[in-house]
Amino acid sequence: MKIVISGLGIIGGSLAKAIKKYTDHTVYGMNRSQEPLQKALSCGAIDAIADEETLHTADMLILGVYPDAAVAFIEQHGADLKKGCIVLDTSGIKTKICDKLTSLSHQHGFVFVGFHPMAGKEKNGFDVSEADLFVKASAILVPIEAPQDAVETVASLMKKLQFGQIVYTTPEEHDRMIAFTSQLPHVLACAYVFSPQCPHHKGFSAGSYRDVSRVANINAVLWSELFIENSQPLIDEIQTLIDHLTEIQQGIRKGDRDELATLLHHAKEIKEALGE
Amino acid sequence: MKIVISGLGIIGGSLAKAIKKYTDHTVYGMNRSQEPLQKALSCGAIDAIADEETLHTADMLILGVYPDAAVAFIEQHGADLKKGCIVLDTSGIKTKICDKLTSLSHQHGFVFVGFHPMAGKEKNGFDVSEADLFVKASAILVPIEAPQDAVETVASLMKKLQFGQIVYTTPEEHDRMIAFTSQLPHVLACAYVFSPQCPHHKGFSAGSYRDVSRVANINAVLWSELFIENSQPLIDEIQTLIDHLTEIQQGIRKGDRDELATLLHHAKEIKEALGE
Repeated sequence: MKIVISGLGIIGGSLAKAIKKYTDHTVYGMNRSQEPLQKALSCGAIDAIADEETLHTADMLILGVYPDAAVAFIEQHGADLKKGCIVLDTSGIKTKICDKLTSLSHQHGFVFVGFHPMAGKEKNGFDVSEADLFVKASAILVPIEAPQDAVETVASLMKKLQFGQIVYTTPEEHDRMIAFTSQLPHVLACAYVFSPQCPHHKGFSAGSYRDVSRVANINAVLWSELFIENSQPLIDEIQTLIDHLTEIQQGIRKGDRDELATLLHHAKEIKEALGE
Repeated sequence: MKIVISGLGIIGGSLAKAIKKYTDHTVYGMNRSQEPLQKALSCGAIDAIADEETLHTADMLILGVYPDAAVAFIEQHGADLKKGCIVLDTSGIKTKICDKLTSLSHQHGFVFVGFHPMAGKEKNGFDVSEADLFVKASAILVPIEAPQDAVETVASLMKKLQFGQIVYTTPEEHDRMIAFTSQLPHVLACAYVFSPQCPHHKGFSAGSYRDVSRVANINAVLWSELFIENSQPLIDEIQTLIDHLTEIQQGIRKGDRDELATLLHHAKEIKEALGE
């Protein structure tokens, strides 16, 4: 396949490197700034820099940019794509972006498959991208209206890129689950480090502090966009967490050890039932 | 020194193994049940099983049991200790236990130094103890009334056991900091996994889920005791977290990306100022 990747940040750059490492496909890069393109060329992450002509003949286009920029890219270039070109986004949210890109796919005749690679780092940009970022990670696919053969082409590619599992879902289920598994931990890491005790933690902390606060080292611009684009599921998850924190807080205030232990033990049972 | 360790769980067992590995002191073990004692004997973690006579001649007694049990042990055996014997607890809370043990030290003439080794695992018991559990960890010491030479003896021992730093504090500061660094992450890990989405997370989760939920695999009996014995600082920390979660939730509801990004970016600044 002739694959164009627009946006060579950590995700787009790692996909480029993985495709070159694990497949024989040809990779073309596009990027707002020149530096990542030159770096990608010189390290062999892309075969060439894409131009308008490349878009006309591409079999697959992967959007490695932020959600709004992904939609803007297709609004600008959708008409340049050949019929049947498979377009993948890589956004951390799906309902809003899938609505817009599905509608644009009707207009321009490309095939849209929502895609969310469940991998990342606390740092961003092409410099921290790596071919093995996706090893054993989950590849979430949101096929919506895509024909079966296009979905199989995508799934087959993801397996070659070393993803550990392919999960098929709807935009709504994706956003409800991601609100819990990914967005809420980022929200609570930020809320956690806002405590007045945080700047004084050294010497008093170990693994618990490290793990809960890790993702407070946040890309605020990206996550603000993701949070607001998925506001209702996330607002609901935050409220669920607040309600359960309040329940434990009341148990501590009441001071009945056995009752509190029964409540906390339920958390252990949930983890154990998941084999964790 | 002749060191008695009462309670050969993960902490007491690891201290025994570390003392045998890194020093020439003689270690005697005491435990409610026989099995850990026999295991500790056969693997060389202790030199012998302690009896009443051993307590009369011990230079140091380390309490590796839960907070209430530590106080109960000294109520029962405090009169057996020789004058000047250094008694260390290893509890995760300090104000209540230090009050009681300081008062008992006046009565019986031993020297009490509060001690909290900042290391652990999600599993408990002698079987998961290890000599290198404390490598680079923080040893928190709460000297209260202990004379300088006794505190230096303890600090010197902890350095030999490979602790990375010695932190000196008061019971109140210890409990306020631990409420934030250790107790709150355990509370929120439990509250987090109570979400109805949790049992369905597989395929939708990665490092954020794993790190936030890790300590939900909780020893509910131990932590219920620790939470209730440190109730006010912990209730305050939970409230601070709820307030900040609510602030972020309101920012998401309002939908102003720039304003939300400014709020979240403050978390990144806190982490960066700490070099994290």
